[in-house]
Amino acid sequence: MAAVEGITSFEPPRRVLMGPGPSDVHQRVLDAMARPTIGHLDPEFVRMMDELKELLRYAFRTRNQVTFPVSGPGSVGMETCFVNLVEPGDKVVVCRNGAFGGRQLENVERTGGVPVVVEDDWGTPVSLGKLEAALDANPDARILSFVHAETSTGVRSDAAEIAALAHERGALVIADTVTSLGGIPVLVDEWELDAVYSGSQKCLSCTPGLSPVTFSEAALDKVRARKTKCQSWFMDLNLVLPYWEGGARTYHHTAPVNPLYGLHEALLMLVEEGLEAAWRRHAELHAALVAGLEELGMSLLVEPAYRLPQLNAVCVPDGVDEAFVRTEALRRYGLEIGAGLGALAGKVWRIGLMGTSCTRANVDLCLEALSTLLPEAAAK
Amino acid sequence: MAAVEGITSFEPPRRVLMGPGPSDVHQRVLDAMARPTIGHLDPEFVRMMDELKELLRYAFRTRNQVTFPVSGPGSVGMETCFVNLVEPGDKVVVCRNGAFGGRQLENVERTGGVPVVVEDDWGTPVSLGKLEAALDANPDARILSFVHAETSTGVRSDAAEIAALAHERGALVIADTVTSLGGIPVLVDEWELDAVYSGSQKCLSCTPGLSPVTFSEAALDKVRARKTKCQSWFMDLNLVLPYWEGGARTYHHTAPVNPLYGLHEALLMLVEEGLEAAWRRHAELHAALVAGLEELGMSLLVEPAYRLPQLNAVCVPDGVDEAFVRTEALRRYGLEIGAGLGALAGKVWRIGLMGTSCTRANVDLCLEALSTLLPEAAAK
Repeated sequence: MAAVEGITSFEPPRRVLMGPGPSDVHQRVLDAMARPTIGHLDPEFVRMMDELKELLRYAFRTRNQVTFPVSGPGSVGMETCFVNLVEPGDKVVVCRNGAFGGRQLENVERTGGVPVVVEDDWGTPVSLGKLEAALDANPDARILSFVHAETSTGVRSDAAEIAALAHERGALVIADTVTSLGGIPVLVDEWELDAVYSGSQKCLSCTPGLSPVTFSEAALDKVRARKTKCQSWFMDLNLVLPYWEGGARTYHHTAPVNPLYGLHEALLMLVEEGLEAAWRRHAELHAALVAGLEELGMSLLVEPAYRLPQLNAVCVPDGVDEAFVRTEALRRYGLEIGAGLGALAGKVWRIGLMGTSCTRANVDLCLEALSTLLPEAAAK
Repeated sequence: MAAVEGITSFEPPRRVLMGPGPSDVHQRVLDAMARPTIGHLDPEFVRMMDELKELLRYAFRTRNQVTFPVSGPGSVGMETCFVNLVEPGDKVVVCRNGAFGGRQLENVERTGGVPVVVEDDWGTPVSLGKLEAALDANPDARILSFVHAETSTGVRSDAAEIAALAHERGALVIADTVTSLGGIPVLVDEWELDAVYSGSQKCLSCTPGLSPVTFSEAALDKVRARKTKCQSWFMDLNLVLPYWEGGARTYHHTAPVNPLYGLHEALLMLVEEGLEAAWRRHAELHAALVAGLEELGMSLLVEPAYRLPQLNAVCVPDGVDEAFVRTEALRRYGLEIGAGLGALAGKVWRIGLMGTSCTRANVDLCLEALSTLLPEAAAK
């Protein structure tokens, strides 16, 4: 008992979230999450679920029937794709050009798949030449996986071309769109992506903890034709789908009711703005941020052609204490920017311009904070 | 685009939740969930995480260091226990006396464990005699799993005795306390339970989507001594714990920030009431509900000694249209009561008295609704 004495309600500080996610959650979304909880089988809740699927189809640019938010963070959406599509012994070509490609590889290994890794340097996109060679050398590959928007580096890879190379050879395509969805075009049907996962807390600006996914009919055919049971009970699509699909909704797990209210509202805001307008906003404010950074003498890790507008990997100038800048930005400006991850730890900051966080005022705040803190950090 | 036109903000109806969960979420908890989102690595968030672990230790009556909420529904907490503790080939004694024991069995099978099932009828507790015989016949069993409070039947099994039988034979104990935690005693340290999972949306009355878990040192020793990698990347304790434990918190996944605010507040309310007082409230209002039901000529499925106060399986009287009663209770009274699950579908209603839903006013409302609707349902 002693240890809990003195604990009081948690009042979070006000922050401006310009890291790699979560992004700022709009008051409308927060208000939605605070509405009364109802049952996960309530007819009104089921109606909301149907709208949610429709809203996700809009965001993903797809007509895929099976399009819904997995009840867990993006990592659960990722694992849902791999444990359902990959059967033990399946050969999977995995493109790794950052931390999240590495996670895909972990997923393939833990699912009993046989991985073929296409390796590219952190900060560069997936090389189409290397990928083509790997596919040609492995004509029995059943699946190809890649990360559309690498959150660890700020790199965009060419989803349309990658998917085309795979489909020409009869492989299904798993795509990580955690950071891309809502910020740059993610054209699931046009590109013919087969299994796609995303996250709620990046350019959709909802609370973290939900993972939108969508599956093509070809992907579902492979799931239905499995010879072995999916290794995960929770993620087994054959068990989950009767809750999200069909006339009589069958209980599988208790859905995260209030966060789903939030996602519904966040997607509604995306529809109101328009997907193309959201893409334009991200592109324009990215240009403004980069111009300001360059005026401060800073440079970005990634070549302009492959930069993600919503996630900017900014090189830490020589002699600058990078942790000091992040700590003081948080303390003095309430501004969160992200540290480098893995191979880029200490070498870059990751400055996010995602969803609700992507505003002119935030760009200005970030540039003001850096212009003040950089000289201090260099003098240390 | 056409399909999303006409979708507006979701305004859920007001309900009184007396099903098998979710239970009513208090306005304080809803308000907490609507506070501004901050980063999952923000120092203030990390401080809140530490308080949350302390609050969960209070609820679980444990000093276990590793006590935290898994970022997913109770089913993910369940799977986290099984995929970490069970290695392929491990013999696991599974007690099945309802739907959720059946899920434990599914988890053992999908993890490559060798299950030994101790079967009891739905509506009865785990038989200690059968369990002892199964353990004696399988001295190489490494793990025993059971459901403390069967949400499908309303039965409480004797956790202390079950755990003692397992420990006498050197087996670790996995316990499902999804529906028990906060409603009846769950004494993790006193009973020496090794891996325990629960849910946020039952007697803790938080939004669904989080699963409190706690692990003994003996359980962690088995996890550390694994010869094979955990089959799940997301649930692998060796990867998750560096985020929840230790000085430098390492990013694993983005935690569901706002729902965790809600769980913090819900647990704080439990501390304010006092755990023993909460148990008493559940016992007293259960007695009032049962008295009222008996006055209406109704009976419960479970013998008094094994009844869960927080989940009452009420037999549908002969000739009564059970779906009519549930539908009309929702329509006319805004009252949700639960249907029977699996073997008990159509045979019982499940009336929950969980957490915030466990009030005298709700007992009265439920009895009033039933007294009106039963004659109508019988006349149909």
